[in-house]
Amino acid sequence: MGPATRYLDIDQPHTLYRGDKLPGLRLAWESWGELDADRSNAILIFTGLSPGAHAASSKRDPEPGWWEAMIGPGRPIDTERFFVLCVNSLGSCKGSTGPASINPDTGRPWRLHFPELAIEDIARASKLVVDHLGIEQLHGILGPSMGGLTAMAWLKLFPQTTRNVALISTACSATPFAISIRSLQREAIVTDRNFKDGHYTDDDWPEVGMRLARKLGMITYRSATEWQQRFGRKRQDYFPQTLFGMRFEVESYLETHARKFVGQFDPCCYLYLSRAMDCFDACDSDESLKALFDRSFSGKALVIGVESDFLFPIHQQQELAAALEASGSEVSYHALPSVQGHDAFLVDFDRFGPPIREWLE
Amino acid sequence: MGPATRYLDIDQPHTLYRGDKLPGLRLAWESWGELDADRSNAILIFTGLSPGAHAASSKRDPEPGWWEAMIGPGRPIDTERFFVLCVNSLGSCKGSTGPASINPDTGRPWRLHFPELAIEDIARASKLVVDHLGIEQLHGILGPSMGGLTAMAWLKLFPQTTRNVALISTACSATPFAISIRSLQREAIVTDRNFKDGHYTDDDWPEVGMRLARKLGMITYRSATEWQQRFGRKRQDYFPQTLFGMRFEVESYLETHARKFVGQFDPCCYLYLSRAMDCFDACDSDESLKALFDRSFSGKALVIGVESDFLFPIHQQQELAAALEASGSEVSYHALPSVQGHDAFLVDFDRFGPPIREWLE
Repeated sequence: MGPATRYLDIDQPHTLYRGDKLPGLRLAWESWGELDADRSNAILIFTGLSPGAHAASSKRDPEPGWWEAMIGPGRPIDTERFFVLCVNSLGSCKGSTGPASINPDTGRPWRLHFPELAIEDIARASKLVVDHLGIEQLHGILGPSMGGLTAMAWLKLFPQTTRNVALISTACSATPFAISIRSLQREAIVTDRNFKDGHYTDDDWPEVGMRLARKLGMITYRSATEWQQRFGRKRQDYFPQTLFGMRFEVESYLETHARKFVGQFDPCCYLYLSRAMDCFDACDSDESLKALFDRSFSGKALVIGVESDFLFPIHQQQELAAALEASGSEVSYHALPSVQGHDAFLVDFDRFGPPIREWLE
Repeated sequence: MGPATRYLDIDQPHTLYRGDKLPGLRLAWESWGELDADRSNAILIFTGLSPGAHAASSKRDPEPGWWEAMIGPGRPIDTERFFVLCVNSLGSCKGSTGPASINPDTGRPWRLHFPELAIEDIARASKLVVDHLGIEQLHGILGPSMGGLTAMAWLKLFPQTTRNVALISTACSATPFAISIRSLQREAIVTDRNFKDGHYTDDDWPEVGMRLARKLGMITYRSATEWQQRFGRKRQDYFPQTLFGMRFEVESYLETHARKFVGQFDPCCYLYLSRAMDCFDACDSDESLKALFDRSFSGKALVIGVESDFLFPIHQQQELAAALEASGSEVSYHALPSVQGHDAFLVDFDRFGPPIREWLE
């Protein structure tokens, strides 16, 4: 949360998608650019699992955001034309209500007493911010990774509230492979000796489990090809050599990233969001993907996938593009040859920028 | 170790490849078929990380072995023609000396006091058994996975002691991706609260770490395609439903496999063998692969890879086959379309049987 973060507080009970109730909620959001007079130029961006609402810098907060190269004046998502909105996901720990927030009934963090969270809840919470701003129809929604699942949930729940949609490195539901990876990440966290069924303290943080979870994440976010090029079999000399410690550069790279992450994300928030990703299925009401796209929007669709992504493999984006095609949508599909795997949307701007710019033209 | 296991005990100090000494060693081995009069019909099989010497059943031990369908009368490795030998890897815990064995100097298990182990040591230990049997030249050596690394080490250390070689789902060295996976498996073990720097007891076994390591192993041994076909998004009802416990069939599948493994393999043996795989490089003396193959054997080479293997990806077997080709060897290369990934050699006998049979004809 930075100086540009704004908050929407809802002081009434909020029923979640799976039926449980929250006594109220807070949503952290940030925006860039100006909403035009008829409130028709808004772009809503849904985030991946870990980023917050700070997608880009601004005068109020010059700190670079997680999609800095993509959002700004003259950039692919041009803030001179669009009012760009990003909401921290419900269930996260970057300003919005989640398992790390205080449960007003007990005065203590929710942790594992937080009710079951669905991806649909993230879409619904974001809708509260959109409504609060008086926006009836968005120019577009856009989501990479978990954000793409949220975009799918939005289409399912709020048809015809966006003209255009962009689905990036995402899917209509998780593969068993992706489920197995996330299941292991959660197991590493809940079995950490400091996790204590959610009763961890700042002094005894479940660091070991979070580090393992993050490293496994990094392994599935990038690609073997990229690492072959970047690291090969080079040895590391940054960290001290211990018996079964790090010997190779790829190991010290993972360690450096994991250390950065551990203190920045709440373990319970991680568990809830991770599980929500596994359980999401855009077609769980037996509606076909084609039918879902048919009824939910009528503008331009953009689907981008990366050939080296094995967490959300390219056949999943092909499936989305094919259903969009079948629904008669105007769809632009890009299978990018980036070597950075699932994370390419965060780094390979030369490839991701042009199709996103074109989608908004 | 079963009723067909035999042992070779060496009661003299044994210098390891990296320079440390073992005061002596024991090697567990098993064989099938008869050694012919001029001792020229022996096939030596090197194993992957976890199996022992019991590759197939026999009259003495009817229990099916880890490569049962491949070895026996009339099978691809035909025990009516060949004397087939399998040695439990040095450093393992299935009869041969390793970190779980008793250090005679202390009367306690070696654990983390075991000296540094290299893949070359596994090859050298196997050579002791071959020498003991009076075999000067093998008909063939064959190794899948870690066993293929051992076969490469054999060629490097003992040129012209085998006429033919078969390299299966293996490589000349590990990719940074494979290193990162194994690094994480080791980290899960050494950070288990019960690991205690190797001072674990039978009552407080580092089960959590071993389970995580095994599950991560299973994830990289199979393929996303296979799991899509086998499990899709089916829910599980075998294990009780807990808050962040298993919901999907793929999760219960991993759990079942991990539970089986945990009690059967020693954590320190796992660490030593896993690290040895990372550090092995057939070309670490700056000899080219082509030059290594040139000088080490002169018969038939077989290379098999699996297109869905991402632990030892197909480009690594292509690299072996290309170097063999360049060295003028008679090489048969098979890129199999099996969906079972790295583990296909353990299950897809319809595809693996014929090329191995042909190699031996």
